[in-house]
Amino acid sequence: MQEDFKAIEFKDESLVLIDQRVLPGKLEYLTYRTSEDVAFAIKDMVVRGAPAIGGAAGYGIYFALKEAKGSWDAFIQKAERIRSSRPTAVNLMWAVDRMVEAVKKSGMDLVAARKEADSIVEEDIAMNHKMAKIGAKVIPQGARILTHCNTGALATCGWGTALGVIKQAFYDNKGIFVYADETRPRFQGARLTAWELCRAHIPSKLIPDSAAATLIRDGKVDLVMVGADRITTDGDVANKLGTFTLSVLCKEYGVPFYTVAPITTIDFNMKEGKDIPIEERDADEVKRPGGVLVAPEEMEVFNPAFDVTPHQNVTAIITDKGIVYPPFSMNIERIKNGEEL
Amino acid sequence: MQEDFKAIEFKDESLVLIDQRVLPGKLEYLTYRTSEDVAFAIKDMVVRGAPAIGGAAGYGIYFALKEAKGSWDAFIQKAERIRSSRPTAVNLMWAVDRMVEAVKKSGMDLVAARKEADSIVEEDIAMNHKMAKIGAKVIPQGARILTHCNTGALATCGWGTALGVIKQAFYDNKGIFVYADETRPRFQGARLTAWELCRAHIPSKLIPDSAAATLIRDGKVDLVMVGADRITTDGDVANKLGTFTLSVLCKEYGVPFYTVAPITTIDFNMKEGKDIPIEERDADEVKRPGGVLVAPEEMEVFNPAFDVTPHQNVTAIITDKGIVYPPFSMNIERIKNGEEL
Repeated sequence: MQEDFKAIEFKDESLVLIDQRVLPGKLEYLTYRTSEDVAFAIKDMVVRGAPAIGGAAGYGIYFALKEAKGSWDAFIQKAERIRSSRPTAVNLMWAVDRMVEAVKKSGMDLVAARKEADSIVEEDIAMNHKMAKIGAKVIPQGARILTHCNTGALATCGWGTALGVIKQAFYDNKGIFVYADETRPRFQGARLTAWELCRAHIPSKLIPDSAAATLIRDGKVDLVMVGADRITTDGDVANKLGTFTLSVLCKEYGVPFYTVAPITTIDFNMKEGKDIPIEERDADEVKRPGGVLVAPEEMEVFNPAFDVTPHQNVTAIITDKGIVYPPFSMNIERIKNGEEL
Repeated sequence: MQEDFKAIEFKDESLVLIDQRVLPGKLEYLTYRTSEDVAFAIKDMVVRGAPAIGGAAGYGIYFALKEAKGSWDAFIQKAERIRSSRPTAVNLMWAVDRMVEAVKKSGMDLVAARKEADSIVEEDIAMNHKMAKIGAKVIPQGARILTHCNTGALATCGWGTALGVIKQAFYDNKGIFVYADETRPRFQGARLTAWELCRAHIPSKLIPDSAAATLIRDGKVDLVMVGADRITTDGDVANKLGTFTLSVLCKEYGVPFYTVAPITTIDFNMKEGKDIPIEERDADEVKRPGGVLVAPEEMEVFNPAFDVTPHQNVTAIITDKGIVYPPFSMNIERIKNGEEL
């Protein structure tokens, strides 16, 4: 199975992105040709989702190399601009590091850089399919699955992480049903996941984030499956705001809680979730849903984009190298050492 | 202290309501003169908040009596229409029952009915002030309080329930700080509570509902205080969707969870929360925040307006007859028997 759209595509020396800010109302593609514009696209969430950000960043670095015209300092300055476009998803830093390394190694060769950026995307597509197959094992026949934010084809270079696993289960005829959290404040669940679910004709309902609690308590959800923006070596998971709440509810009511992420989402240099930088975004995301002011103009807002789920609340982490169960620190070390689980 | 607005007022034989659907953008008053229009105002949430609904219903029944022109059957039919305008808040049923009883007792006397409706409002105002004083005892100096939905002057005939207690603590110079959940899907926290907080100049921040979890875990919330739409004799609490989630988080992280409600919110005929009818509202509340479509038109939605917090998660229920601590069933029985706690 393949999607009939691509969130990220490189053609005619341009990066073509679906403008995820205007979905589901409009399916529009935007074309980027400079590193600065790619940094803006990431920051403004034209493209979002940790793996997709990594893919876009690769081409951003390629543009940076072109623009630098042989100046290493200029190149690094532009690369840093992309690296700092969003702080939480580690895939962004990982992709920038990988690209910079490749550029260095090749003596600032453009062809090599382009090839490296292509590889990031191709590898992500392959990892998506591997995770979908591996993750399908934990989804029982007839499962009712609750998911949060968007982790599908729009969040990756390919098929998806958590939503990729869910789609796989659907195409395997498991007769699943999906509850999609709307995911305030930016409605990625309503705008993006619901759009992907409708296109794939997967039986599903959209819910306000707060409706998850009753469904979980009342036995109407068999498992929760979400993505990740950064996973520490202890197994703590930074993901879209709202994920942590779901994990507490799952723990309280004995519902399995899975996170699905390629190993590029693991930050092997960070042990504990408390050290993950959490991006705070603009107050208007909360005060102007759909562009319409719903709060007093003078009201202050606290708008963290992510939260951290402690590994104690995680049943397992589904990766392209296998399913990581507790004890997480030991098993993540095994993955670091190249083992498949 | 008094608010400089009234959510409910009766003058010139008309019920005047603030149109809570258009706040905070506009402060508009709508005038109602028929029972059918009052039923619509309740259903469409021109007026909302369990005690305020009770107050509005009183005048709705008064209009019904006028319209019935001496026919008991016509009167009861119109009264039933008001009773069924919303299913969860028990104050509505309580007010209708009380009015019907008074109408019966007085031989369908209009003056007596008008007086009874006035009494409902006046008693609610008095209960608000009693609760504010009683509840202030549980709020320590410098408390950071998280609240959900709107439980202030807009939700009652007077000062408020939970937000009334919070305001009292502010005017008592306790140096409090308030986090207001935006309260999806209808944004009562953003639209109404934030509006009341700003008018009263109470230091506060608006948050997406999902941001509460991190604040509670990280010790940034000293207590959660919410209202109630119906309380059973076991102490289970139906309240705005999202309340139950907060109670689970409070229990997990040892943060006190208080609900504030006049005893008119206790349903002495219902033992367990599982029997409370939960209103499901229109999909468009979720799909069209601020009137703007954010989900595919064809996406199905599950939109329960309330959830039920089990009494095990409740620290105490603050009423106008005192603070009810566990064991709830025993202490609610004492209140039923006219005791003050």
